[in-house]
Amino acid sequence: MSTPKILILGAGYGGLLTTLQLQKKLNYNEAEVTLVNKHDYHYITTWLHEPAAGTASADHARVYLDQIIDTNKIRFIKGTVQSIQPEERKVTLENGDVLMYDYLVIGLGSEPETFGIQGLKEHAFSIRSINAVRQIREHIEYMFAKYKMEPERTDYLTFVVGGAGFTGIEFCGELADRIPELCREFDVNPELVKIYNIEAAPTALPGFDPDLVNYAMEVLTRKGVEFKINTPIKQCTPEGVVLATGEEIKSATVVWTGGVRGNSIVEKSGFEVMRGRVKVDEYLRAPGYDNVFIVGDCALIFNDQGRPYPPTAQIAVQEGENCGANLVKIVRGEAVLEPFVPNLQGTLASLGKGEGMGMVGTKKIYGTSAALMKKASDLRYLYKIGGVGLALKKVRL
Amino acid sequence: MSTPKILILGAGYGGLLTTLQLQKKLNYNEAEVTLVNKHDYHYITTWLHEPAAGTASADHARVYLDQIIDTNKIRFIKGTVQSIQPEERKVTLENGDVLMYDYLVIGLGSEPETFGIQGLKEHAFSIRSINAVRQIREHIEYMFAKYKMEPERTDYLTFVVGGAGFTGIEFCGELADRIPELCREFDVNPELVKIYNIEAAPTALPGFDPDLVNYAMEVLTRKGVEFKINTPIKQCTPEGVVLATGEEIKSATVVWTGGVRGNSIVEKSGFEVMRGRVKVDEYLRAPGYDNVFIVGDCALIFNDQGRPYPPTAQIAVQEGENCGANLVKIVRGEAVLEPFVPNLQGTLASLGKGEGMGMVGTKKIYGTSAALMKKASDLRYLYKIGGVGLALKKVRL
Repeated sequence: MSTPKILILGAGYGGLLTTLQLQKKLNYNEAEVTLVNKHDYHYITTWLHEPAAGTASADHARVYLDQIIDTNKIRFIKGTVQSIQPEERKVTLENGDVLMYDYLVIGLGSEPETFGIQGLKEHAFSIRSINAVRQIREHIEYMFAKYKMEPERTDYLTFVVGGAGFTGIEFCGELADRIPELCREFDVNPELVKIYNIEAAPTALPGFDPDLVNYAMEVLTRKGVEFKINTPIKQCTPEGVVLATGEEIKSATVVWTGGVRGNSIVEKSGFEVMRGRVKVDEYLRAPGYDNVFIVGDCALIFNDQGRPYPPTAQIAVQEGENCGANLVKIVRGEAVLEPFVPNLQGTLASLGKGEGMGMVGTKKIYGTSAALMKKASDLRYLYKIGGVGLALKKVRL
Repeated sequence: MSTPKILILGAGYGGLLTTLQLQKKLNYNEAEVTLVNKHDYHYITTWLHEPAAGTASADHARVYLDQIIDTNKIRFIKGTVQSIQPEERKVTLENGDVLMYDYLVIGLGSEPETFGIQGLKEHAFSIRSINAVRQIREHIEYMFAKYKMEPERTDYLTFVVGGAGFTGIEFCGELADRIPELCREFDVNPELVKIYNIEAAPTALPGFDPDLVNYAMEVLTRKGVEFKINTPIKQCTPEGVVLATGEEIKSATVVWTGGVRGNSIVEKSGFEVMRGRVKVDEYLRAPGYDNVFIVGDCALIFNDQGRPYPPTAQIAVQEGENCGANLVKIVRGEAVLEPFVPNLQGTLASLGKGEGMGMVGTKKIYGTSAALMKKASDLRYLYKIGGVGLALKKVRL
């Protein structure tokens, strides 16, 4: 009997937590575990709005995998997945390498969902990776520098954030904090800078408690963000956005945060998807494949009311832990797996430095308390993946 | 008899030193002195290659005028000169204001000289102001960020510096120092980055001692700069440069340092010019106007061999001091003015951190000694314009 091969694609929340469970629970040689990731680092996606705005460095939001992965137990391959052939139990990388597996964990994350809005893909930025947010930050700074050379180009100082979901709201908070710094650095009158947050739905943060939504909008409005709710974007052009109302906003910087879909590799590999996500069974397995697990943004799970859980870090972490634990059972020949049951502990959104809001359990919290609770939650996550050392290194109070 | 009106245009080296002489030597009410400048700060042009490359902040290279100008003695107007009407003794600003004068000092600085090279004006940057160098720095950083999103675009990592004169050489030195930092920040392999220095003349630093030229080229070559001497640029395009040899270098960043000419306002105002510079008399006066003095890059002076002095900070400073002193004599009715005689004390070029070369008197100096001498010379200038306080604040060892 040969050692089972477990292949994990992606070191995001889901893939990383699966890997860490296996690393912790498996003895040497119980399984051959391989983790494939595009970069040699994991990034804390829920922090990316900060380096995107420039209020934190991109380095702050990433954790090098060699700091948390034990390479005696886990083989790490830096590579980009091109396709999965589940029938043949193999994965092909972009460099042509082929990896065989007995058990596969797909944690390939998401892509921006543009809902068919023309020009978004070509002309808008997305807050989606370390590389992407460094580009956004540099782009924003460059616009300030360019404005000083062409003061008639007020579109350089106009920032459009498409989508008032979680990422859109949090990014607006950071950007509003960053603008005064940029104005000082580049000698720009702050009154000339505009931040628009544009949302198609009838409310910001759809699905959130209205008190929290109002609080968030008030805080951000005070910081200078102008909301256009219930206002779909019709088109994104090199000059800005055209709204469904016909209004045109001239802007050299459009950041789209309006939604995500599962990584298209999953669909291209023949899995049946809804918005790129695979409806998994109670053990997070893809339909028809007992040996293929899907975690994170590529997995689709419905709640008791028949509505899909949103793709959040919290659920991805729990999925990874469940998947890792079940793989240990499988490797050891245990018959009964643990079904995945999300344990929603609340949601917290930051609204810039020292400001936030959210639910902890059933309690609404606001302001500094929310910001502190969010730090505590971040700390817990860092401790979980990297122990005390990482938590102390990364946390900023 | 009314108080004479002295109007100084530009707070560069020449205009500022004229102003400071008048501030120091004139008693209250001996003259009405007005200084007009586009910005409320003076900048140390000979340092601009540092913030352009990003090795120092732009703020470091500027000095706010209110820190060095005594507004009880000098009236300061922040404004941009549109035209000079010397027959009517008046100056019109872009905002429509008209300023009358009895004595005028033109210190309006320079513009890039493109020698008719197609596309340079449109597609190349110039190291010419605080705003311009902030744009260059941000552009360079943005190119690194963009490269990470489009790794096939090696032109994002290719930097072309047109001109191997003083500014070109010094900028190459700073840029070469900056590249490793940028590579670390953006996870870029340093071997992919190229810096080309392209010069039409048969040598770098034309007119300099060949030993010094060789030293500079060796230091910069070691730092990764590739020289193409005796190689005119034929055309600059949005994609890079085309050389006279037919070779094309794809580059998203072309910085033109190949030469300057006097501010075109001077020519447009009817003064006779050569490359935008007015051949002044021995008292720095414009031909035909006893009451119009020209200092700095707009003034053309010939040496004993009949060759024009290059437009340097050193000469501009001396011209400002001479002009200021002569204006004091004029205001006081003294008949004999002091002719301007340049006192060349040597020239020092930096070649990145801790490296330099140059002449002090007739002695050639290299390396750390040259870098230190250059610091000493900078310190002397800062002391001259702003006293000990400014010198201590700005100097970096």
